Amino acid sequence: MSLATATATATHASRLIEESGQQAPYLLTPGPLTTSDATKAAMLHDWGSWDDDFNRLTAEVREQLLEMAGAPGDAYACVPLQGSGTFAVEAALATAIDRQGKALVLANGAYGQRAAKILDYLGRAHVVLDKGDYLPPRDEEVAAHLDADPEITDVFLVHCETSSGILNPLSEIAEVVKARGKGLIVDAMSSFGAVPLTVEDVPFDVMVSSANKCIEGVPGFGFVILRRELLEASAGRSHSLSLDLYEQWRYMERTGQWRFTPPTHVVAAFHTALAEHLAEGGVAGRLVRYTRSRDRLVAGMRAMGFATLLEDRWLSPIITTFFSPGHPSFDFGRFYAELKARGFIIYPGKLTQAESFRIGCIGRLDATVIERLLVAVREALDAMGVDDCRPVA
Amino acid sequence: MSLATATATATHASRLIEESGQQAPYLLTPGPLTTSDATKAAMLHDWGSWDDDFNRLTAEVREQLLEMAGAPGDAYACVPLQGSGTFAVEAALATAIDRQGKALVLANGAYGQRAAKILDYLGRAHVVLDKGDYLPPRDEEVAAHLDADPEITDVFLVHCETSSGILNPLSEIAEVVKARGKGLIVDAMSSFGAVPLTVEDVPFDVMVSSANKCIEGVPGFGFVILRRELLEASAGRSHSLSLDLYEQWRYMERTGQWRFTPPTHVVAAFHTALAEHLAEGGVAGRLVRYTRSRDRLVAGMRAMGFATLLEDRWLSPIITTFFSPGHPSFDFGRFYAELKARGFIIYPGKLTQAESFRIGCIGRLDATVIERLLVAVREALDAMGVDDCRPVA
Repeated sequence: MSLATATATATHASRLIEESGQQAPYLLTPGPLTTSDATKAAMLHDWGSWDDDFNRLTAEVREQLLEMAGAPGDAYACVPLQGSGTFAVEAALATAIDRQGKALVLANGAYGQRAAKILDYLGRAHVVLDKGDYLPPRDEEVAAHLDADPEITDVFLVHCETSSGILNPLSEIAEVVKARGKGLIVDAMSSFGAVPLTVEDVPFDVMVSSANKCIEGVPGFGFVILRRELLEASAGRSHSLSLDLYEQWRYMERTGQWRFTPPTHVVAAFHTALAEHLAEGGVAGRLVRYTRSRDRLVAGMRAMGFATLLEDRWLSPIITTFFSPGHPSFDFGRFYAELKARGFIIYPGKLTQAESFRIGCIGRLDATVIERLLVAVREALDAMGVDDCRPVA
Repeated sequence: MSLATATATATHASRLIEESGQQAPYLLTPGPLTTSDATKAAMLHDWGSWDDDFNRLTAEVREQLLEMAGAPGDAYACVPLQGSGTFAVEAALATAIDRQGKALVLANGAYGQRAAKILDYLGRAHVVLDKGDYLPPRDEEVAAHLDADPEITDVFLVHCETSSGILNPLSEIAEVVKARGKGLIVDAMSSFGAVPLTVEDVPFDVMVSSANKCIEGVPGFGFVILRRELLEASAGRSHSLSLDLYEQWRYMERTGQWRFTPPTHVVAAFHTALAEHLAEGGVAGRLVRYTRSRDRLVAGMRAMGFATLLEDRWLSPIITTFFSPGHPSFDFGRFYAELKARGFIIYPGKLTQAESFRIGCIGRLDATVIERLLVAVREALDAMGVDDCRPVA
C-alpha cells in the first residue's frame, strides 16, 4: 500500500476506531506500543504468503531496513524471522558465534542476562561482564576482558537496555572490539529506528531488532542485519530448524518468500509503519520526537518530586525508570490502575533492588500526550493521597 | 471483544474495506486464508502485552482450545507459541520426545518430511515410514514397525497432509500406537477446528495446530495441546530458549502472560475468530461448510474433465489436489494469473512426480464462492485455449 493509500485508509480507520468506542489507552511501554491508525488499517487485508504481491512487501521491508542501517546490500543482508525479538536474538547468536567460539556478554539488565541464558541452551562458551542493574559497561573494562582472554571471539551488547532504560555506550565499545578483530553483536531491539546506528559509525557484524519497537509496527517478527560473509560461513551451525537464519536467508533469496508461514498482516503493518517512518524524516525525525517526549516527561516528573534512576547522560529517549515514592500511601498496583483509567498504560520496574516503575516514550505519541500523562500522574497521586514523591532515602 | 461488539465493528470494517477499494482475492490455499472482517477488525486496537485485559484474551483462548479438543484441563494443557506452525511442531517434538527416545515419523508429504528434518536438528533418534507423495500410512504397517523396533517411544503423524490434501487415517493409527503404550504426536495444523479431533476419540499425547488454519485467524502463532504429565516431565529437555514449551507453560501459568512479547493483534484476531467458530456451531458447523465447498469444488472440476489425485475416501475437506491438464496450452503460471485477476489465489502442487495444483476450501468462504471460482476456472481455461482438462495419460 502506498503512503497516500495508507493515509486515506487510515482516515477511514480512525473514524471506525472512534465509532466503535474502542479507543485504546496509550501504551507507555517498551513495546508493543501505540501504533498509528494507518499501520493498524494495513491489517484489514488478507495476503497470500506465496503471492508476488506479498513477496514485494517483504522485499521492500528488507531493503528499507538495510538502508536505515546504512548497510550496503553487497556486504550485508537483512533476514526477518517470525516470533518475538528474543527469537531473533537466539537465531542471531546461533548464527554468529561459531560452535568453537566464545562470547563476552555485556550485561546490565534482563536482556543481557537473557542472551547469556540463550548461550547456555546453545552450549556456546561465554563469560558475562555483569554491571548489575544500571551501570554501563565501559570501553576500558571491555578491552581488559578481551586482552585477558584471547579465546573470546565475539562480544554481545544491548544498545538500549530497557530494564533500566540506559543507553549503553555502543560507539566506544565497538571501537575496542573492532580494534581487537572480534565480532560485534548488537541487540538494538528497542533503539533501532530512533537512535542512530549505522554500519559506518558502528561497524557491527550482527544487529538485531524487531517490528514493534521504534519503527512502530505491531509485534510478530524480528529481523537481523548481518554481514553476508558471516552468514555464508554459518551453514549447518544452527541448533534449530525454525531459527536457522542461514536457511531462512537462502530460501528468501531463492524464492522471495518466507521459509515458513509469515505473519502476513504484521508484515503489511510494518510496511506501512516504514513508510510513515520515512515520512517523519527517518531516524533523525523520530529521535527528535522521542527526545522531546522524554525531556518533557523527565522535567515534569522531577517537578513533582520524582527521581530518575539514571543520571542524565545515560538516559535513553526510549524508556525512563523512576524510583517509586517512599510515601507510605504509594502503591504501584493502584498507581497503574489510576493511570490506566485515565488512558495510560505504564510498566513496573525491573530492578533487583529498588522499587521503581518505567514510562516509555516510543510509539505513536508526542509531548502533548506526555503533557496529559503528567496531569494523570498528578491526579493518580492525589487519589492515593501521595503528596511527596521522593524515593526512600 | 464480545461477539456482538465484534460483529458491530465488523460491519464498520466491511464498509471501510469496501470504501478503500482494497477488496482482496479469496485465498484458496492451506492458510494464511481469507478471514472474516470481524477477525481483521479486532486488530484495530493496540494491547499492552503485560496488561490484564490482554491476559484475559490469552486465558480465554487457551481454555476454548482445550474445550475444542475435549481435553480436560486437569490432564491437558494448551501452550501457545509465537511464530509459524513449524515453530510449534519443533517445540512439541523437543518437548515430547525424551533425549533418549526414538520416534517413528509417518510421512506422506512435505510436513512429515519436515518433522524428520526437525529431529535431525534435535539429534533425536528416529525412523521414517515414507509412503511417498500421497499413499496413507495404515494401521497394520505402523503396528509392524512398532513390533519390529521396541526402541521406538513415540509416533508422529500429520493428520491432514496438505502436500496432497490427504486426510490420514488417524483413528486406526492411534489405536495401534496406544495399544502398544507409545506416545502419539499429532500434527493437526490444517485440520483442527474443522475435522473432529478429541482426546476421547483419539487419545493423543500431543497435538499441534496454528492460528491461521481452520479456526480462521491470521498467522503469527501456533499452539500445542498436550498431557500435563508429559509437560511436567519435560523440564530442561528443550534445545532452545525461545521454543522451550515447558518454560513457556510455567511462565504463563504463573503470570498469565506470554514469556516473550506475543503477537498481540494476532491473538486478539484469534479470540474473535474463536467466537465466530463457536457461533457457527463449532467443529461440526465448520465441517459442514468446508465439506459442502469441497464437494461442490470436486464435482465442478470433474465436470470440466479435471481429475483428483486422491480417491474420494482419502479426500480432506481442507484442500484438494488436481492433476494439471495434459493439454499443451495449459500453463500453471498463466492459470494462476488468470484466476488471480478474477479474484482467486490458488496453490501450485507439491508432488514430486506429477504436475498438479491445489485448491483449498478453508477460510471465510462457502459453496457460492466455489461456484464463482468454477466460472473463473472455465474462463481461465478458455483464455488459454485449453479445451481438454484430462491429465497426461
